[in-house]
Order: sequence, then structure tokens, then C-alpha cells
Amino acid sequence: MGGVSTADRAERVPKQDRSRATRQRLLEAAVACLAEHGWAGSTVLVVAERAGVSRGAAQHHFPTREDLFTAAVEYVAEERSGALRALFPDGAAAGDRRAVVAALVDLYTGPLFRAALHLWVAASNEEQLRARVTELEARVGRESHRIAVELLGADESRPGVRESVQGLLDMARGLGLATLLTDDGPRRRRVVDQWARLLDDALGQAPDEG
Amino acid sequence: MGGVSTADRAERVPKQDRSRATRQRLLEAAVACLAEHGWAGSTVLVVAERAGVSRGAAQHHFPTREDLFTAAVEYVAEERSGALRALFPDGAAAGDRRAVVAALVDLYTGPLFRAALHLWVAASNEEQLRARVTELEARVGRESHRIAVELLGADESRPGVRESVQGLLDMARGLGLATLLTDDGPRRRRVVDQWARLLDDALGQAPDEG
Repeated sequence: MGGVSTADRAERVPKQDRSRATRQRLLEAAVACLAEHGWAGSTVLVVAERAGVSRGAAQHHFPTREDLFTAAVEYVAEERSGALRALFPDGAAAGDRRAVVAALVDLYTGPLFRAALHLWVAASNEEQLRARVTELEARVGRESHRIAVELLGADESRPGVRESVQGLLDMARGLGLATLLTDDGPRRRRVVDQWARLLDDALGQAPDEG
Repeated sequence: MGGVSTADRAERVPKQDRSRATRQRLLEAAVACLAEHGWAGSTVLVVAERAGVSRGAAQHHFPTREDLFTAAVEYVAEERSGALRALFPDGAAAGDRRAVVAALVDLYTGPLFRAALHLWVAASNEEQLRARVTELEARVGRESHRIAVELLGADESRPGVRESVQGLLDMARGLGLATLLTDDGPRRRRVVDQWARLLDDALGQAPDEG
């Protein structure tokens, strides 16, 4: 965007706000579209219509279909990570690790996970999408891991702790997949209870509990 | 096919063999096609061509696209379950549980898992496919659980054991998803090592120690 003088800045703020709001509407519409119609049914035009934005404006924000949908999945993933951190502002004491595990598992349900899954599976067969989604997933995955370690109060310098947390997130993803077709809630809760117990043994005391 | 007399039967066997071989070629081609091109690119005609079978013959065996692809995923899942049982003909002693866990995790990699995932994700947005795939996944899931319990020597009358095994299979599915875009082998092995250890503790635990 280049340098903006102080005088310009004051005038531009409302325009930037509008632009940001348009971008956000597009991103939210893109995730909903991907979740409902899959990759094959998701184009920039369909999303622009859904968001009530002109095709030109949509293409100004997102020149390609890949740009739009990877940005959308990343945006919603960040929103959800933020919401998760806000749920446990002080991290977890060992006592509420079960609640943290349940909240982590919930990250892999709903429209975001469905949208991400569509993008992921499409990327496995489309060269153009593959590199983008691989990079996106690595980034989102690292962030999920960071949040999990933080909220669980996991000390990764202890042997096995890092892998225990990774396995937990893999399980959460697998549970999300199971939830895709059927309401798997009651089974999911029982598995979460048990794995939270196993994890608790593996992690030991939270570091700040002395 | 109705009743077949003894005299007829002798003559028909080779024809039945040919028919079975054709069916099998179609099923294998269908899984490969689904894995490579996804649901959108997978039709009965494409599979018939790949299998070197006429369209009419393919439609004789599988009247609809849904019939062909659900049968294909089920067929290959059964093949792989059989192969897994054959690897551990006597089930697992506690000592080789890690090998069993690794083999279970491997079920959720490669072309079968990729094909199943495409079918699964497509089913989440297509009513016609959804009921079929939900039913198929329930059946395949129960069978995987049965094999896991058997090979791990897990006593499901002990509290938590059933859920531990379920969580393991969910984790295996999540690990398979991670492997879809990148070769996740080294990380996967470390996670498997650690969770095999945690699971071993969980399965060996006496009920009154819980």
C-alpha cells in the first residue's frame, strides 16, 4: 500500500473500515459456501453473491479462487483459536484439563472443520491448491498445538509430552471426521473423558501448580 | 439369480468365476479412481474404461454410481482388515501392542483411506450418498473396532478400555488425514510410540485401580 501521510490517514480510515468489512463478509461467506457445497460448488462468484458484494470487488480482495478459500479457512481458524484462548484466559489448572480437551476437540466440528476438510481433500488431487493448503494446514496446525500446550499447561521438555499433545489433536481431527455424517456427540464425550484421563497421567502436574 | 440345478452348476462355475473377476476389477478400479480424481471425477463409465470392462457389464454389476463406489470402499476395507488379521494370527501379547497400534494406524493411509475420505466428504453434501456412506462407515467402523480389540487383547469389561480403543482409532483416522497432503511418517511414528505406551497402561490397568 506504500506510505500514507498523516493527513491522508484520517480520511482513509472509514474507507479502510468498509474495505475490511467487505473482506470479512467475503471470508465468512466463503467458509459457509465451502461447508455447504464443497470445493466443486465453491467459486468466487457464488461467494460474492452470497456476501452481497460485486464480483469486481471480490476479485479486488481475492484475485484467485485459491486466494479466497485458503484465506477464508485461515481467518475462521484464527477466530476460533482466539475464542478458545478467551475461554481459558489463565490456562488450565490440572483440574480443568478435561474441559480444555473437550474445547480443543470442539475446534474440529461445525462449519469450519467441514470447510477445511473440503479444501484439504480437494487439495490432495489438485496441484494448484495443494501447496497452498499444505502451507496453511502447517500454520494452523502449529497454532493449534501452541494453544493446546499452553491451555493444558504441558511441559514439553518432559519426554513424551509433545507427542501426547500431538496425538490428542490427531484424535480430535479423527473425531471431527466421525461427526461429519452423524451426530456422534455421546460417543465423543465418552472418548474425550477417557483420553483426557490418559493425557492427564502423561502430562503430570501443570508446571505452575508447584 | 433363482435356483440352479446340479447339472447347470458345473457348467456355470467358470462363468461365475469370470463374473467375480470382472466385479473385482471394477471395485479395484473404482477405489483407484476415487483416490486419484475424487468423487466429482468418478463415474461408472470412467471406472469401466479403467477396468477394461464394457459400460453395460459395469452397470449389470453396479446399477448406480453410489452402488459401485460404496461397494468398492467396502471391498477394499475388507481386504485390508483380512490382511491385518493375517499379520497377527494369534492376536497380540502385551509385548507387541506397539506393532498392532502401528498396523492399525496404517489402515488409515494410502489409496483406500484417500478413496474413503473422498466418498465421506462428498456424502456430507449429497443426500443420495449420505445414507449409504453413513451405513457403510458404521459397518466398517464396527469391524475395525472388533479387530483392534482382538489384536490388542483388550478386555472391554474393564472401565475405560472401550473408549481407549475408540480414541485410538479416532487418532489413527486423524493421523491419516494429516498424511493426505504431506509425508507425515516420522511424526506419525513418534505419536504412535507414545500413545501405544499410554494405551498399554490403560489396557493393563485393573478395574479397581481406575
